[in-house]
Amino acid sequence: MINIGIIGGSGYTAGELLRLLAFHPNANIDFVYSTTNAGNAVFSVHEDLYGTLENTFTDTVNPDVDLVFLCLGHGKSLSFLEANNFSVSTKVIDLGNDFRLSKDASFKGKKFIYGLPELNRDAIKTAQYIANPGCFATAIQLALLPLAKNGLLSDTVHVNATTGSTGAGVMTSATSHHPWRMGNMSHYKAFGHQHLGEIIQSLKQLQNSFEQEVLFIPNRGDFPRGIFATLYTKLQSDFESVVKLYREYYEGEPFVKITTNAINMKLVLQTNNCFISLEEKGDYLLITSVIDNLVKGASGQAIENMNLMFGLEEATGLKLKAQGF
Amino acid sequence: MINIGIIGGSGYTAGELLRLLAFHPNANIDFVYSTTNAGNAVFSVHEDLYGTLENTFTDTVNPDVDLVFLCLGHGKSLSFLEANNFSVSTKVIDLGNDFRLSKDASFKGKKFIYGLPELNRDAIKTAQYIANPGCFATAIQLALLPLAKNGLLSDTVHVNATTGSTGAGVMTSATSHHPWRMGNMSHYKAFGHQHLGEIIQSLKQLQNSFEQEVLFIPNRGDFPRGIFATLYTKLQSDFESVVKLYREYYEGEPFVKITTNAINMKLVLQTNNCFISLEEKGDYLLITSVIDNLVKGASGQAIENMNLMFGLEEATGLKLKAQGF
Amino acid sequence: MINIGIIGGSGYTAGELLRLLAFHPNANIDFVYSTTNAGNAVFSVHEDLYGTLENTFTDTVNPDVDLVFLCLGHGKSLSFLEANNFSVSTKVIDLGNDFRLSKDASFKGKKFIYGLPELNRDAIKTAQYIANPGCFATAIQLALLPLAKNGLLSDTVHVNATTGSTGAGVMTSATSHHPWRMGNMSHYKAFGHQHLGEIIQSLKQLQNSFEQEVLFIPNRGDFPRGIFATLYTKLQSDFESVVKLYREYYEGEPFVKITTNAINMKLVLQTNNCFISLEEKGDYLLITSVIDNLVKGASGQAIENMNLMFGLEEATGLKLKAQGF
Amino acid sequence: MINIGIIGGSGYTAGELLRLLAFHPNANIDFVYSTTNAGNAVFSVHEDLYGTLENTFTDTVNPDVDLVFLCLGHGKSLSFLEANNFSVSTKVIDLGNDFRLSKDASFKGKKFIYGLPELNRDAIKTAQYIANPGCFATAIQLALLPLAKNGLLSDTVHVNATTGSTGAGVMTSATSHHPWRMGNMSHYKAFGHQHLGEIIQSLKQLQNSFEQEVLFIPNRGDFPRGIFATLYTKLQSDFESVVKLYREYYEGEPFVKITTNAINMKLVLQTNNCFISLEEKGDYLLITSVIDNLVKGASGQAIENMNLMFGLEEATGLKLKAQGF
Repeated sequence: MINIGIIGGSGYTAGELLRLLAFHPNANIDFVYSTTNAGNAVFSVHEDLYGTLENTFTDTVNPDVDLVFLCLGHGKSLSFLEANNFSVSTKVIDLGNDFRLSKDASFKGKKFIYGLPELNRDAIKTAQYIANPGCFATAIQLALLPLAKNGLLSDTVHVNATTGSTGAGVMTSATSHHPWRMGNMSHYKAFGHQHLGEIIQSLKQLQNSFEQEVLFIPNRGDFPRGIFATLYTKLQSDFESVVKLYREYYEGEPFVKITTNAINMKLVLQTNNCFISLEEKGDYLLITSVIDNLVKGASGQAIENMNLMFGLEEATGLKLKAQGF
Repeated sequence: MINIGIIGGSGYTAGELLRLLAFHPNANIDFVYSTTNAGNAVFSVHEDLYGTLENTFTDTVNPDVDLVFLCLGHGKSLSFLEANNFSVSTKVIDLGNDFRLSKDASFKGKKFIYGLPELNRDAIKTAQYIANPGCFATAIQLALLPLAKNGLLSDTVHVNATTGSTGAGVMTSATSHHPWRMGNMSHYKAFGHQHLGEIIQSLKQLQNSFEQEVLFIPNRGDFPRGIFATLYTKLQSDFESVVKLYREYYEGEPFVKITTNAINMKLVLQTNNCFISLEEKGDYLLITSVIDNLVKGASGQAIENMNLMFGLEEATGLKLKAQGF
Repeated sequence: MINIGIIGGSGYTAGELLRLLAFHPNANIDFVYSTTNAGNAVFSVHEDLYGTLENTFTDTVNPDVDLVFLCLGHGKSLSFLEANNFSVSTKVIDLGNDFRLSKDASFKGKKFIYGLPELNRDAIKTAQYIANPGCFATAIQLALLPLAKNGLLSDTVHVNATTGSTGAGVMTSATSHHPWRMGNMSHYKAFGHQHLGEIIQSLKQLQNSFEQEVLFIPNRGDFPRGIFATLYTKLQSDFESVVKLYREYYEGEPFVKITTNAINMKLVLQTNNCFISLEEKGDYLLITSVIDNLVKGASGQAIENMNLMFGLEEATGLKLKAQGF
Repeated sequence: MINIGIIGGSGYTAGELLRLLAFHPNANIDFVYSTTNAGNAVFSVHEDLYGTLENTFTDTVNPDVDLVFLCLGHGKSLSFLEANNFSVSTKVIDLGNDFRLSKDASFKGKKFIYGLPELNRDAIKTAQYIANPGCFATAIQLALLPLAKNGLLSDTVHVNATTGSTGAGVMTSATSHHPWRMGNMSHYKAFGHQHLGEIIQSLKQLQNSFEQEVLFIPNRGDFPRGIFATLYTKLQSDFESVVKLYREYYEGEPFVKITTNAINMKLVLQTNNCFISLEEKGDYLLITSVIDNLVKGASGQAIENMNLMFGLEEATGLKLKAQGF
């Protein structure tokens, strides 16, 4: 059993981790750290776990756990690790964005590996520290990696992606207030979203020459879960060859499904899957990529990384019933 | 023109008042009072009014307006009126619950009239002070008044009603957080909702002997607007006679529509209408009552009261396009 | 491995069965029968199963399977069984309502057992034929069984329950048309829903003297999944004793959770759980019961029955990540 | 009073016309034509009009009405006009797409004028026949006309727009089925939507040299009403000058509002307004355009055209309370 600590236990990604770990055959939840909820049952916050998980929140860390998941607000992971010492063998998976960029990835002489298995599987297997990708970044990278791998990104990339309201977290806000959000749509941080850094870093990792613009409009959708992303760029090869490259790139991947049929976002909700649809539109390749922002976009992918780091079958605990409707 | 001041201008009921008054042919919005937003354009808060309404929030009241609408939190109207003097002729319509019960209705020697036109139209016409009914209370009373009028409430009344999230106001909260509320349902204050007081008071006004229980479960619905209420009680007369009594009670009413067909909540959204459907179910009379909580349940009814108080045709400014879908 | 055939494979309950069986460790999907889709991939209809399930629809049944799930429209199971012969040992679980009432439960000399494990577990274990309960019926019975067991149902039972749109099935209709349904609420079949028969039958099974009315208003909710039911009846004992009886009745049950805290519908979505909340309200006991209509209300419970019939641990394949949000 | 006939009276655009015309001070609804509903009350289909509109559907046209609105399916307006003769002075507003393109716009020697008031106001005023613009086409053209007017469209135009489910009409379909659509997102007809023709025609009308690509992805949104469109193209002038050109172009327009603040779709629901937000993003101009697809995108604009054709103030009957929430 992997002995696990979860830091920042009251947020959405921690809740989703707990829902997944509760039924993971190799996971033991050693402690769930939350200073504000210390002493309370975990199910007092994540109420669906009533009767499933008996843990209590604590404000004390066990430094000897095998693995720590950091589910803190962006920017708080580094300071937490500086203030809390873990054993030399404790592994860390950070769900925040503190360590995703190479320039920020060093900590006490060790390097955080960017935890996108479809890009860095081998490095993840031997890593001690993992920076788990962002949700938008996951959907967008999976849509583009095969092009980058084959040097086919040589024109502007246009991205429009819509996220569910869980993407904004458990803290209430005006744009997550139900009367405002339901039946509404809006965008934010157009052309300037913070995930662009990790996206471009990964594309350059595969296609060193990549210097094109990625024009990205993120939208707030009227649903709690999911990311629906459409991307297009000029085709640099014939369409059939491109489809073949996608199928080759993702051959054997447990979670990425390539199709040339129309897809919709609900197909992947509650699963760790990413569905990618490819269409030829005149001179352009249109790519549609859908994930569940809390699963493949956060906690499911974190467990996928855990499985790889501990030598387990990658899909362990991640064979999840799709939402359907 | 009626010169109007609005107090508590940044909430949902104030916003809805402003949307309605913007096109009311006899209304002039003299001032919109909000201490937190003083100096800002009204459309900076109620953004849909951009280009429609040029007013600016103020923290100064004009004591000489013809009419003041109080859109403060429940419990704050009394203290506001005590702290602010208006001219002796200024009329007041309070959208809060401070003055709805007879025992609380006196202020400086004058009495607040309970502003349900279908119950108190004549008194409203000559009133200076109006306590505007609560949203649930409006839907439920309109469903029961004809029975009370005819002395036919002699058994327990069962009420189940669901409200939209705007009913909880503009302040964010865990149960109005979009990820939690969308696709969800829950109840609150079952059997103990604060509107029971005004409901029972009105029923007794028409049927002095009324001593039955009103068992009321209020639900939080997954929609921003509307109230869907079902009620049943034992039939004390044959069904056809009861339908006739309802039609008689509401004959000539501009906003209440009686039917024996099935209805649904969206029929009345964005209007000041109340649709009431009557069905015979064995020994029981099943009543379905639907309103828009912000219009007939709050700001629309407040304007209806204003029209009555100022001698205007009751539906002035309230001939509103229904939402449809 | 249990060799399984699914009849009526293109509907919602069949889809949900397939999503669950795809990861069930003891299940082998032998065939999925659908005359309209014969020859097509199962994922062409249940698209989320693309990459997960490789079956193809067929219009030929294999009479030697170990188990057949009938997912036909209500009223069609009997005629299907009459027209198709299975081996003498083939077990049948019918998700329709043809065999739920004792008077209809005989088929070729054998009796369909009503498949509510919390009521009939032992009989289910040895049954060959199971009539799987209705969705509303499941939520309502689980809320009332402990009272019936202890002879405490001696007054009218009031039930108000709201279902998601999947409850109306995959066939399009005016009341499941998105523009009409979203943001809407309505009721149907008030006081006359077809599930009342099986509910009353079960209550009488435990409390033979039960002769009270069950007044049930079913509502159409603005969400795809879930049932939110509130029930009340006069308390026949002190509240603490009643809570104790509920805890005793459901002690050791894998899926029913008793609480005295407030609950909401989303707590159980995507799981086979039923959460039941108990509250004392004056002379009344208020019971809130929530399930996922497609899981505990249909396909999950069908698999629970399968597990019992084949001697498996009851929760096999049913340890499901809750939806959360 | 304008004597009006409505053809195709049972669909969504006819319903919205009726809701608007019911309170229009200069409109008399002479007849509502529907072969399938002839003899039934209009409110039997458009149920919210119960108590508001007393008309009955008919299958007989009155050829002497002043104005006919055609609310038929796309492709059916021409055949209807060929089969039914109206008086020489009867005006026609077609809400379908039969006559929108110049090449299709001639009928019996007269020309249909493309009814976008912000483009063709003067021609509309004297027109007998109007082709009312499509919903997406309206949102997109209003976002681009000032650029075309000033010759500033000299690079590819990228458009991503999401529509509510009413855009797909009253007929049920798999992609408008509530269980599928709620909480979902998908695209259709990417790069090939039928509204591109009218959009490009209008842009060329103002900028004859326009030869750029318009890359348009239409999405199905999880809401009944509204269009949310984002567009970008390379800035051909400094941003402040461009904002000035937009303000000049729309100066005095009753329904188009220009801002440089963030906007969201709900701001315009239930109104005839179009809100347009302009932002500078590096080398690009980002334009956000929102309308109500049934009002400014269909029936509201049709009435705007009627007002112009009959010499009324353009906003008559169109001063509509915004939805708010």
